[in-house]
Amino acid sequence: MTQRQPRLEIEYCTQCRWLLRAGWTAQELLTTFVTELGEVALIPGVGGVFDVRLDGELLWSRKDQGGFPELAALKQLVRDRIAPDRSLGHSDKKD
Amino acid sequence: MTQRQPRLEIEYCTQCRWLLRAGWTAQELLTTFVTELGEVALIPGVGGVFDVRLDGELLWSRKDQGGFPELAALKQLVRDRIAPDRSLGHSDKKD
Repeated sequence: MTQRQPRLEIEYCTQCRWLLRAGWTAQELLTTFVTELGEVALIPGVGGVFDVRLDGELLWSRKDQGGFPELAALKQLVRDRIAPDRSLGHSDKKD
Repeated sequence: MTQRQPRLEIEYCTQCRWLLRAGWTAQELLTTFVTELGEVALIPGVGGVFDVRLDGELLWSRKDQGGFPELAALKQLVRDRIAPDRSLGHSDKKD
């Protein structure tokens, strides 16, 4: 059983019914980073968790940051790590 | 970086644009097996691949079986391995 890298994980609270949000986020990232992501794992969790990790690095945590990641910002975090030369189009901030 | 088990993998062909199908399958399985699945990984592939694996065991391969897995049948394959006592409701065949 081979785990692919880069591996992005989305751990979501099942009690909060965040599967659809997690699934949407996963598909958005896989649409943007078609060939750059090795896999995106959806991980059922509990207790209000909504965490996004890339190869073990925590990119977003609802507990720390509050709310949910803004998708353009999340894509920038992923891009900076796995495809730093990629432009993300009109929503891309250069900073 | 912890991989959760049972781990279900869906490897899909990006050239064939099967992400939405893979994402839908992932969410259906996570809706049915809320607490029984450790994770579902979406894995971009090429060359017409649509494979479903559970902890390394190939449950469905488009190359071998042709077409796509019927969702009720796929759920039965998963259920038999990770939650054998679970009924899948009205669509469940006892055989």
